[in-house]
Amino acid sequence: MKERIFLCMDVGGTKLSCALVSEKGEILGKDRRSTPQEKGAIGTVQALEEMGRSLMDRIGERAEAVGISFGGPVDYRKGKVLRSHHAKGWEGFELTATMTDIFGLPAFMDNDANAAALGESLFGSGKGHEIVLFLNIGTGIGGGITVGGKLHRGARGLAGEIGHTKVDPRGPICTCGKRGCMEAFASGPSIARMAREEMREHKGNRILEMCGGDPQAITGEVVARAASEGDRFALSIIDKAMEYLAIGIANAIHLLDPDIVVIGGGVAKAGDIIFVPLRAKVRDYLLSGFLERMPEIDPAALGDDAPLLGAMAIAKEMYGG
Amino acid sequence: MKERIFLCMDVGGTKLSCALVSEKGEILGKDRRSTPQEKGAIGTVQALEEMGRSLMDRIGERAEAVGISFGGPVDYRKGKVLRSHHAKGWEGFELTATMTDIFGLPAFMDNDANAAALGESLFGSGKGHEIVLFLNIGTGIGGGITVGGKLHRGARGLAGEIGHTKVDPRGPICTCGKRGCMEAFASGPSIARMAREEMREHKGNRILEMCGGDPQAITGEVVARAASEGDRFALSIIDKAMEYLAIGIANAIHLLDPDIVVIGGGVAKAGDIIFVPLRAKVRDYLLSGFLERMPEIDPAALGDDAPLLGAMAIAKEMYGG
Repeated sequence: MKERIFLCMDVGGTKLSCALVSEKGEILGKDRRSTPQEKGAIGTVQALEEMGRSLMDRIGERAEAVGISFGGPVDYRKGKVLRSHHAKGWEGFELTATMTDIFGLPAFMDNDANAAALGESLFGSGKGHEIVLFLNIGTGIGGGITVGGKLHRGARGLAGEIGHTKVDPRGPICTCGKRGCMEAFASGPSIARMAREEMREHKGNRILEMCGGDPQAITGEVVARAASEGDRFALSIIDKAMEYLAIGIANAIHLLDPDIVVIGGGVAKAGDIIFVPLRAKVRDYLLSGFLERMPEIDPAALGDDAPLLGAMAIAKEMYGG
Repeated sequence: MKERIFLCMDVGGTKLSCALVSEKGEILGKDRRSTPQEKGAIGTVQALEEMGRSLMDRIGERAEAVGISFGGPVDYRKGKVLRSHHAKGWEGFELTATMTDIFGLPAFMDNDANAAALGESLFGSGKGHEIVLFLNIGTGIGGGITVGGKLHRGARGLAGEIGHTKVDPRGPICTCGKRGCMEAFASGPSIARMAREEMREHKGNRILEMCGGDPQAITGEVVARAASEGDRFALSIIDKAMEYLAIGIANAIHLLDPDIVVIGGGVAKAGDIIFVPLRAKVRDYLLSGFLERMPEIDPAALGDDAPLLGAMAIAKEMYGG
C-alpha cells in the first residue's frame, strides 16, 4: 500500500510553515514565511493557501488530509481557534472547516504544544518511550503529555499546562496574572527580566555588552550564551531559573511518572549549560523511589519540525489511522 | 454467566480488612481486625489467611483470584512489597506468591493509594468520569490517577505521588526529607503540627480543650472539628492548610486536566469546612480556560471500602477481564 501524505501547517505568531509529510514522518517538502500579523486571520489563511498549493504543485503529490498546529488555545474537537495573542480575527475562527473548503480535504488541528509533544514522542527524543512529558520553553512555557504515542489531552483539551505550575507562592506575577508560575521564572522573557532586575555595578557587564549596552535587548538566549562563556552573573541567573524549572518538573514527575522529559524551544537550545544544572536539581527534588531509574531529561531533537510532524500524526490519528 | 467473586485484602499499618467482592463491586462479606504489628509480616499473613478462610466458609463462595491493597510501596508487576514503615519483615516480601500458596488462587497487588483511586473511580465519587485524580489525606498524602477506569501507573508504578509536590520552596521539612511538600502542610499530622506551633496565649484554647489540655493529643481531625464549631484559630489553621493543598491540586489540574478530583482519608471526612475553602482557592489558582467547566472537587464516597473494591478491580483486570 502506498504511503499516505499529509499537508501539515504550523501557524505561529511570527512564522508560518507548511510541509508535505508522509505517514512515516518523512518531510517531502517544506516552506516557511513570516506571519502577516497586520493582515490578521484572513491574511494568514491566504498565505497558508498559497504555501499549500505551491508545495503540492512542486512536489507533485496529493495529500490525504490537512493537519494543523496552532500557536494558541484551540478547541481540537471542533477545529476552532479559541483566541490568539498575536493577531486579530482569530477568536472563534473555524480553521479546519476553512482548510477543508480551500483544499477539499478533511482537516484536523491542535495547539502547538500538543503537536510538538506528539512530534517529539513519535519521531524525536521521545521515540520508543511509553510516557513522555514534553515542555516547550520559549516566550511562554507550554507542555504536552503522550502515553503510548497518543496525546493525553485531558477533559477540556487543556492538559499539559505545566508552565502555570505555581512553584513559589511569593514569586513574581506571571503573564497569566497569577503569582509564582514556573513560566514567570524560566521562560525566555522571564530569564531576561531577572537579569535586568539583578544587574548592577559590574554585574551583568558581559550580558549588556552582548546587547550593545541596551538592557531592553536582553533575551533568555543572550543570558544563556553569556553563561556558556563562563560569565558568573549570567550563570547565577540561569541557576535561579533552573531551580524553579526543576521544581515544576519534579512535581510533574511525581504525579505522572514519565519515562522521559523532553524540552524544546529557544531556551533549551542552550544545551548543557541548562541541562546539567537542571538534571542535578530535579534529582535533588525527587523521592528516592524515582532515582533508581531516573527519568531522562533531554533536549528536543526535531527543532521547528516537531509541530509539523505532530500535526501529521494528529491528522493521521483523527482521519483514521 | 455467573458473576465472579474475588477475595480482597486491605493491608494497613493499623487495620487489616478482608472481603469477598463480586466483579460488579458488591461486598458479600467483610472482616476487619487490628494489624498484629509486633508479629511483623509473618503474623500479618497468618491473620489474613484466617480471615480469608473463615470469610469463604461463612459466605460459602469460592473466589477466582486474590486482590491486595498494600499500605506502602510495592512492585505491582512482581507482586512484591518494597518496604513498610509500620512493621518488620516486609522488605522484599513476595505477598502475591504467598497468597497463591495459601489459597491456591492467582493473586495481584498494588499500593493502597492506587487501589483506593481505582475503587473510587469505578464505584465511588469518580464513577462515570473519564479522568479522575484521587487524593488520600491521612497520615501522609497519597494519590492515584485513573483514565477510562484504568490506573495510570507510570513508568515505575509510582505515578500519583502528589503529596510530594513542592508547594513552597521555603516551607517546612516533610517526612520525605525534602522542603515544602504539600504533605508537610496538609496531612493530618501537619495540620496538628501547625496548630501546636501557632498556638499561644488564648489562641488554640478550644483545640486544647478538646484534647484534654495535651498539645501532643492534637490531630488534624480535632483541628477540623474545632473549625466546624466556628473556632477562629482552628479556622485559620485549616485555611492555611487548604491554601497549600489548593496549590498542589491546581498544579495537578493544569497538568492532567481531570474531570474530577476525589479526596478521601481522615481529613476529608471533615466535609464542607475543608471543601468550601479548598474549592474557592483552587478556582483562584486555575487558568481561566479551566473555569468554564471547573473540575469537581468532591469527597470520596466509599470510605474504608475503596481499597477493597479497588483491589477487586486490580485482580479482575490482571486476571483477565
